[in-house]
This record gives sequence, C-alpha cells and structure tokens, in this order.
Amino acid sequence: MSLSDFKTEDNIIEIGSEMHGLMRELYPICRSITGDGVRNTLNILKKEISLAVHEVASGTKVFDWTVPQEWNIKDAYVKNSRGEKIIDFTKSNLHVLNYSVPVNKRVSLEELKEHLFTLPQHPEWIPYRTSYYSKNWGFCLSHNEFQKLQPDTYEVCIESSLEDGHLTYGEYYIEGKNSDEVLISTHICHPSLCSDNLAGIVLATNLAKYLSSASLRYSYRFLFIPGTIGSITWLCLNEPKVSKIKHGLVVACIGDSGKFTYKKTRQQDAEIDNIAAHVLKDSGNDFEIIDFFPYGYDERQYCSPGFDLPVGCLMRTPHGEFPEYHTSADNLKFVTPENLAGSFLMYLAVLKRLENNKKYINQNPKCEPQLGKRGLYDKLGDQDSSKALQLAMLWVLNLSDDKHTLMDISDRAGLEFDLIKEAADALAEHELLKEI
Amino acid sequence: MSLSDFKTEDNIIEIGSEMHGLMRELYPICRSITGDGVRNTLNILKKEISLAVHEVASGTKVFDWTVPQEWNIKDAYVKNSRGEKIIDFTKSNLHVLNYSVPVNKRVSLEELKEHLFTLPQHPEWIPYRTSYYSKNWGFCLSHNEFQKLQPDTYEVCIESSLEDGHLTYGEYYIEGKNSDEVLISTHICHPSLCSDNLAGIVLATNLAKYLSSASLRYSYRFLFIPGTIGSITWLCLNEPKVSKIKHGLVVACIGDSGKFTYKKTRQQDAEIDNIAAHVLKDSGNDFEIIDFFPYGYDERQYCSPGFDLPVGCLMRTPHGEFPEYHTSADNLKFVTPENLAGSFLMYLAVLKRLENNKKYINQNPKCEPQLGKRGLYDKLGDQDSSKALQLAMLWVLNLSDDKHTLMDISDRAGLEFDLIKEAADALAEHELLKEI
Amino acid sequence: MSLSDFKTEDNIIEIGSEMHGLMRELYPICRSITGDGVRNTLNILKKEISLAVHEVASGTKVFDWTVPQEWNIKDAYVKNSRGEKIIDFTKSNLHVLNYSVPVNKRVSLEELKEHLFTLPQHPEWIPYRTSYYSKNWGFCLSHNEFQKLQPDTYEVCIESSLEDGHLTYGEYYIEGKNSDEVLISTHICHPSLCSDNLAGIVLATNLAKYLSSASLRYSYRFLFIPGTIGSITWLCLNEPKVSKIKHGLVVACIGDSGKFTYKKTRQQDAEIDNIAAHVLKDSGNDFEIIDFFPYGYDERQYCSPGFDLPVGCLMRTPHGEFPEYHTSADNLKFVTPENLAGSFLMYLAVLKRLENNKKYINQNPKCEPQLGKRGLYDKLGDQDSSKALQLAMLWVLNLSDDKHTLMDISDRAGLEFDLIKEAADALAEHELLKEI
Repeated sequence: MSLSDFKTEDNIIEIGSEMHGLMRELYPICRSITGDGVRNTLNILKKEISLAVHEVASGTKVFDWTVPQEWNIKDAYVKNSRGEKIIDFTKSNLHVLNYSVPVNKRVSLEELKEHLFTLPQHPEWIPYRTSYYSKNWGFCLSHNEFQKLQPDTYEVCIESSLEDGHLTYGEYYIEGKNSDEVLISTHICHPSLCSDNLAGIVLATNLAKYLSSASLRYSYRFLFIPGTIGSITWLCLNEPKVSKIKHGLVVACIGDSGKFTYKKTRQQDAEIDNIAAHVLKDSGNDFEIIDFFPYGYDERQYCSPGFDLPVGCLMRTPHGEFPEYHTSADNLKFVTPENLAGSFLMYLAVLKRLENNKKYINQNPKCEPQLGKRGLYDKLGDQDSSKALQLAMLWVLNLSDDKHTLMDISDRAGLEFDLIKEAADALAEHELLKEI
Repeated sequence: MSLSDFKTEDNIIEIGSEMHGLMRELYPICRSITGDGVRNTLNILKKEISLAVHEVASGTKVFDWTVPQEWNIKDAYVKNSRGEKIIDFTKSNLHVLNYSVPVNKRVSLEELKEHLFTLPQHPEWIPYRTSYYSKNWGFCLSHNEFQKLQPDTYEVCIESSLEDGHLTYGEYYIEGKNSDEVLISTHICHPSLCSDNLAGIVLATNLAKYLSSASLRYSYRFLFIPGTIGSITWLCLNEPKVSKIKHGLVVACIGDSGKFTYKKTRQQDAEIDNIAAHVLKDSGNDFEIIDFFPYGYDERQYCSPGFDLPVGCLMRTPHGEFPEYHTSADNLKFVTPENLAGSFLMYLAVLKRLENNKKYINQNPKCEPQLGKRGLYDKLGDQDSSKALQLAMLWVLNLSDDKHTLMDISDRAGLEFDLIKEAADALAEHELLKEI
Repeated sequence: MSLSDFKTEDNIIEIGSEMHGLMRELYPICRSITGDGVRNTLNILKKEISLAVHEVASGTKVFDWTVPQEWNIKDAYVKNSRGEKIIDFTKSNLHVLNYSVPVNKRVSLEELKEHLFTLPQHPEWIPYRTSYYSKNWGFCLSHNEFQKLQPDTYEVCIESSLEDGHLTYGEYYIEGKNSDEVLISTHICHPSLCSDNLAGIVLATNLAKYLSSASLRYSYRFLFIPGTIGSITWLCLNEPKVSKIKHGLVVACIGDSGKFTYKKTRQQDAEIDNIAAHVLKDSGNDFEIIDFFPYGYDERQYCSPGFDLPVGCLMRTPHGEFPEYHTSADNLKFVTPENLAGSFLMYLAVLKRLENNKKYINQNPKCEPQLGKRGLYDKLGDQDSSKALQLAMLWVLNLSDDKHTLMDISDRAGLEFDLIKEAADALAEHELLKEI
C-alpha cells in the first residue's frame, strides 16, 4: 500500500482522539533533558512503535558540548512556618526550576524570592523555567500566589539528584525502497506542556505508526530527543549517517488552533521547502512561510553550516508567539483532538507529496510520442486539446528532461499536482516515462 | 542589398494585395496532411519561389510515428430520398470529415446523425473536423441545416481513397554568409481556412521571395509541411541538419486583425524571444507575449525535449481564441490584404533585427580610444557629451566585450536599437570594433 | 588605531574649515591637464601629505592616446581701441579658453566673436571651456559683458606656451595589512572651479591624511590626476599594479549641498556598490543610486572593458545636473565648509564599512558551539533568546561559511551592521571565528 492510498479522512476523528489520549497519558510525567522522565515517556511510546532507546553516558564529548549529568527528581515543595505546603511539585511539575540541584533548608522570604519565578503579565499561570548548565535551584508559581507570600521562615525542599548517568533518546527507522532518508525530529525534554511539545511527540509517533505499514519510496528516521543537546549528541555519534538525510522536518508547536507556519531550511530552496509551500497553498487555508533563522528548535543544529541539512520546521503558532507558550496554560485543554488531527493530516499531506514528487525521463524525447495509438488521446481531431489530462501528459512529456520534478512541472504548467501525477502514472504505465 | 535596405513601407499596399491574391488562388483546394491538395498547393507556390518538393512514402517510420496512407478525394455528398444534395463537397470542402474513408450507402437519419458535426453556438458556420489516425467517415454542416433534417433514407457518398502513397512537403533554403540557420515553418494541411493557415503560407512564401534577393547574414530554411506529422517527418529525416538551426519561428494564425501574440520558445530566453519582445514593444502597438506550452502548432515538435530548438511562434490571435477558428467563417473576407501586409512587415522587422543583432569585440578595450582624432567626437570640450550618437558609441565600446549583443547594449543603455547599430557601424568602419 | 576609532564627529566643524581653507589656497591657480598649475597644486598638497609627483614626457604613447604638449600661461586679455582691458585673465582664469595657443593681434569685433564663449541662459556667469586636442584660442565671458561689445578694433593677447614638456600627476600610497588596494582617484585639471573639483581634491587629501595614521586592513592608493588623459596614463604605465585594485571610488562633485549620489561600477554588484548603497541607506538621508554609464569622470577609464575595475563614483549632485556646473558660479561660496565636512564623513563611513566588512569562517561549524560556557549566553533558560547580541552571534556563526561577509549576514539577518560586527568581534575573541 502506498502512502497515497491512506484514507485518513475517514477515521480522522478517531485518530485525533487516540493522539489526545496518548498525550493525556504522557502529560503528568516530569521530563527534562535527561533522566527517568524521558525513559518513562519512551517506554509509553514503545507500546505504539518499536522504537530503539539509546543511552549516552554523562561526560561524553559531543562536538563543543559535553553530555551533562543526569537529573532526577522525587519531590519538591515550599512550606510556611505553619507546615503548609504553599508550593507543591506533586500538583504541577512546572513548580520546580527544571534541573534544580537538591536543597533542603529554611530561608527568609527575602532569600526565597531570589529563587522564585512568576509571570506578572499572566498572574494565574505558572511559568516554565530551566537551568541546565548553571547550578541553581528555584520554584515557579503564579504571580497571584507569589503576591500572597508573607514574611516568614520557609522550608524549601527539592529532593532531586544530579549525578553521572545518561542522556536518553529514542530512534525509530523505517526502511523504504531507497536508502535516502527523511528525518522527522521532535523534542521530548519538556514536562507538562502540551503544544510544546507533547503534541509533537504524539504526532511523530502516530506518523511513524502509519508510515511503518506503507510501501515507501524513502526511508524514514524518527528522533525523539531532548532539545539542543539531543540533536547535537545524535549528529555527533551518527555523523556517517548524516549524508543520507535528503529531507527533514522538525515537529514542534503543532497543538494549538492557529494557522500553519512553515520555517524554511537554511538552504531556503530545498525540495522540502517547495513542497511544504505548495501543500500549504493547496490546502486553501491561511498559512505562513517564514525564512530560516538560527534559533528556535533543533533545526538550529541540523542547519548549522557544517551540516546544512535540508530540514525545515512545520508548526502551527511558533514558539514565543502565543501567550500560553512555556506556561501552565499550554495544557490538555489548549490542545484539542481536532488540532492534533489537523496537524497529522498536514504532515501526511507533505510527506505524500514528497513521496510522489518524482523525476522522470521521457523515453521518446524527440518529438511527441503518438499518444493516440496508445489510447491516451482523443481519436477525433476536434482540437479540444485543452482536456486536462491530455494537456498534463504533454507537459509531463515536454519537461521530463532530467531537470524537472513533477512539482516543477505542475508549477510551470499551472496544473494541479495530482493531475500531473495522474498523467505521469499513465505515461509511465505505457513506458513513455522512466523514473530517475 | 542588406535586409535593412528594403523599403517595404512604400509598396506595402501592393504587397498586401498580392498576398491576398495568392491566398484566393489557394483557397478552393482541399488540402489534408497528404494527397494531391498539398501537391497542388506547392505547385502554385513554385511559381513564386523555387521550392523543393519532397515525397516520403507511406509506412516510413518517423520516430514514434508512421507516415500514414495517402488520402485523396474526388467528391462527397448526402442526398435525401428525393435525390437532392443536401450536403455538397463541391460547395465547401469543409463539409467532409477530413481523411474520411470511402463510403456509399443508404442510411437512416439516426445513423447519419452519428456522422454529422455541427457548431450549435454558431449555427450558420460549418465546422472543420479531421480523423487522421482513426478510420471514420463524416460530414460537417451548419447547425441550421442540421436542424432541418427530417426522418428519411439518405444516400451518403464519399468518393475518397486512402492508400499507400506519400506524404508531401515543400522546402526552400536560402544560403546566407553564415551556415547558421533561421527556420521558418508553416503548416499546409488545412483546406479552405484562411487565417489558419493560408495566411501563414502566403506570408512565408512572400518572406522567402524577399529574402532570396537580399544579402543575408544567416541562412534561412522555409518548411511548408503538414502539421505534426510533417514536422516530425522532417526532423526525423533531417536530424543531422537540426543543430544548424539557431533561431526559428512557426508562422500561424497571422491573418486576422487582432494584436500580435508571440509565444516564447521552450528555452524562454532565447535570442529570438528577446528580439520578438523588443520589436513588438518598439512597434508602439498593443501586443502579447505568452509563455511556451506544449501544444499549439509545430513548435511542439521543434521544442520537444530531445531537440529543444529556439523556435517561437509569432501569431496574431492564437488558435482557439477567435470564434471563427476552424470554421467556414475563417474565410477570404476574414483575412484582409491589410492584415497580411501588417503581418509581413512585422515578420520582416523581427528578421531585420535578428540579422542586425551582432556581437562585436572592442579592439581597444583598455581605456577609451581617442574618438576625437578619428573625427568621431566633438572637438570643442563643451561637455555636451549627451549627444546621442557619441553616447551610443561610448556604450558600444564599453560593452563590446564578448558578452553583449547590440540589443543587450541597447537595453542596458536605454538607447534605441537603431542608434546603437549606427554607432557600431561607425566604430567598425574605424576598426575600433570587430564582429564576432 | 583602527579606522573605527576615529572620533571625527567631535571636530568635524574644524575639519570642514580646514578643508575650505585649503580650497581657498588652491582656488586662484590656473590648472589644466598639464603645466605649472598642476605642479603648484601638488606642491601645496605636499604640505598635507607626502605625495609623490610623477612627470610623463609629452609624446609618450599611452594606449590609443599620446601625452600632449605641456601648456602654460602667463597672461591673457582683450583690449579695446582705447587700451582698456575688457577681458582680463588676472581677474578670472576661466576667461581664457583652456589650452589656448598663443595669440597677439588686432581683430575686428566680428572676428573676435568667433572666439568668444558665453552662457546666454546665465548672463552673469563666465563659462568654462577647453580645447585640449584641437589647436584654438578663445575667451570666455559673461553674456552681459558680451552684449556690451561695440564694433571696434580689439587687441587680443594670450601669453601662453604649448611645447614639449610633461604631464604631471600626484600619487600617494598607504600600506595596509593587506596588499589588496582601494583606489581613490580625483581629477586636478580644472581651474577656479570648486565643486568640480577643488572639493574633490581637498577631500581626497584630507582622507589620505586621516588614513595614513590609522591601522588599515587594505592598502590605499590616491591618485591626483588630470581627467581622462591622466587616468589613461596611469593605467598604461602601471598596468602590472592594476590587479591589486579590489575596490575604488572616483571623487568628484562633492562640494554642493545636494543629496549624495552613488554611481555604480560597471560590474554593478561589486562589494563597493553594496557597501555604498548600505551606508547611504543607513545615513537616514535622501540619496540616489544610479547605474553605471560610460561617461562622466575617470570611472570611464577604470571601467573600460579591458580593465573592468570595481570603481564607483560617490558624488553629491552629478556633473551637468546643477546650473553652476562648469561656470564661474561654482565658486568658494557655492561650496561651504559644512558641505565639505559632510562629504568627508560620508567617504569615511563608506571606507570604515569596507574595512570592517570581513568574512569569517566558523571554527565550530558542526552544531552550535556552547556559548554559555564562554559567558556569551544568558545562563538562565528564560528563553529570551531574542536578545539582540546573542541573536547576532547565532546569525554570524550560522552564516560564517566562507560565502557571507558581515554585510551579507547583516542583510539576511535584518540586523544592523554594527551589531553584527560586535557579535563577530566577540566570537573572534573566543576563537569561535577566524578571519578569512
């Protein structure tokens, strides 16, 4: 079964529900760039796809970086002098500054405040903060709660550990007809945050599940990695494989209800850039194409000048551009089953176009072949050569010269991709075209 | 005498009349892609230009095609039961489906109707229909006449023959200083239809006649061929000559009074494309430039990917875009002597520009040459260097570096082509330029 | 001290006054393309910069030209029959047709008029006229004075000499770190005319003085030459040095109060073209960029096809576009100290940008380097990565791939050049970048 044959539209509501269900299961886990949160997450994904889990020891040199010590956390809270927990990690794992070192002491309100983070502009939301590479401890809380704090002696307790261990990531490879690869990369380091990036994790998982049962032209490599250090680690440890990557997408921020945004690769005119732009345009909905810039998600690393891979990023509303970003408001209500289903369909449409965007060579390049004798042309010379499929066949024949993909032909002819593909399939069946 | 010296404007009314006269002589002949209609047509043209007539045997393989059997027709009619000819080939050769097989039988109205073709949207006109590669018979008539038909037994008679014979085409070659060729191709397969393409035939003939007495930079090859199968046959049998073709124009649909339309070559930026665009722009009249598309006339074959020749198509209103197209209304009144004369002048202007669009190399490329000592510059330093010809000379000297034709220089300088040419001629005379 | 450290803004009023003072000293001298006027001018400049003065003998062949005889003049006048000097060279050296041959005779009004030049459209101004390559004599005067002339016998006297001698020019070379050169060329052949080109002479002189005390990346070559024959002579006699010239500017017409106009090099997209365009844009003032054309000043010769040097021309109002051009109205009042100072600052800004527009290669091109461990990145993961300098560093790292200069990076990032430069300096300091 080829990717084109998927009839996802039929059961898309079900698909959306399943994705949301998986997201709910993953939501409570306290993930970080290392530790058991990542392991537990990958173990849950393993029930969906048989991904490989890799462990890389702390201290491993990866290009200019070093794999950090592993962080784990059991509990964290702040108690007032009456013993009441006024901040409680078990209620939300966002309450703790991610990668906080262990602490257990009594502090004044003044000292405590130096370790508290709030969002005054959204006083009901808890912010998400990290301190991976600089040892610190802290708590995040709503600004409303922060303002209730009275002078007191507070007991702060973070039962965490930061010790030599491992960085953990998941990898799932699907072998296609061709060893050229499509990379799908998503970050798994965020705790209870949905659009960024539980939505991306469940979308990539679902995509992998679907593709694994299809007959594919390309091979596909899915990476479930902690942001930045994860892609750097993978690139460093898998450098010989990198040249196989011919196209790629970073999956992030695809859970909200905003329009789709495609961020181009550093190359700016890679095939994936053109395909994403065409599919978005053909969708009939509002969308945005933005130029590459060297921050954002792991495309930063894939597109660093030493690799310069054709990896773009297909999002809905980009990071930092929706108020719920990196706060407790990016939750299970913010991301609906419908949003997940729509994003899944968009990814599938892009990959389907990529699979189908073949290049052919006209086997009869000198003058037109006689389509009529093959039943491919109207027999009566009524000159109605505008008939769409015949016209599409003439375009495909004329431009199948080793320089044009089907999408290039669709562009120049001003005809829909699907019609061009239908024409190419008919011509290939009559051996008038040969795939390159 | 160079092409520039023709003073066609003086006797253009006479030229238009002569062309229309030749068209009137050719009009009654029933042409098709093979047969005596073509032979008779070429024999009439031979009185104007000494063209060579080639015969290619039926069954000859030409790329993916085979030269078809030769078709000839003596008479055709439909009689009602009272013996009245209600459709009569001798009144208009459009009445018969071109390439109809012989038939002679009695049929009911119902059966007859399966072989009749009309144009309901133009009820007074007879359509033009063909069936070259699928054996069939039929008649074309006005929709008004069609609607008068009553149930009856009809005698249908087509006295045609479809037998092994030849495909006939005409060729006329003019040797210029240079063996590089300009191809002028026009189709001769249409019966009594004027803008498509008796106008093209008489224009090409007249052009050939004029060019044959001129001193030419390029060699010119004129082809008078049946559409599609004719160009395929010529390309197949003359493949070694094809590389000589450096520029080309397909002559079609140039008899109506519409604005000029230039259809670009597949290459899109060939010299002929630029020249046609400039000459049309300089004409001061409305015009249209359209991109190449792989249907239309014989440019389809010349521009197939295996040849990709720089052959465009200079028309007035393109095929299918005027209601009279392929109907009895494309007649001797539709095409006026004035239209023919205007089209002839336009073709002449394009070829004149092509002949003059030379490339020179500055013989004194380091710093400017001293124009003053050669009498090419004002002696008094009054700084009026804006004087047009001097300025044009400076531009020609500056850009004659092997990369710019005179038209390129005209473009970049924003000066008229004729002024640039005058400057180049003056500089070449003083050996400051050398033609490449 | 690098060019960036100049604090010219502080003492710019003083600089403008000094430049105007030097211009006043040079103003009375009767310059031409050869002769003592040029020598005296260069001797005055020698007090500012230690320029080398070259003498090239009359008769020397320089490409298509020949160094002309040397012209000198002591006095010139026209007297009426009452012995009154009605035209007097000592009042304005514009009165004499530049390069006039000696004459001393009595002539009628009629004969005299054949040798008089006026500007009817500006009746109070004396025009400037020359006759270098065609032997003639003549006088220029205001049209008002011309109209007062009565029939009389006039004594005309031009005490000039035109004899074998030399063409004189000045050259000043500043050695930078790199032997690649920036050419600054200005013409010194005009007599008492200020914007064209005493302003250019004093600006080039001042620029040379400033640069000579700076630490420079490029070497700089200043040419003080007679127009046309001077640049042709230099290019011919210094041909082996020409390939060292990587950027250049012709200094002319920079004394009026008009907006800046940059005339592009023949190459059209040379680095100097891009830099001038950016600096003008960044200035916030109105400006104009015009395409190259093969007349104007000595860029004509530098940009002849045999050299095609990347030499542009940075002016205020171009030659011929202000009414005072080549008249006695282009005088010491027309060119103010403020105009001179502004032009000087603009030249300095362009050269500063050129010096700073380096190309680096990222020393850690595979994935991002870890900026945090070098103190170049915020320690707290508060995601405020939009901070300008950090962002600039990411852009510089991402695009320092051997293909992008800092200005290219500034363009693509949409960030100011100075910020990009600051980022590059910080990265280079940490050995994350290496200059190419």
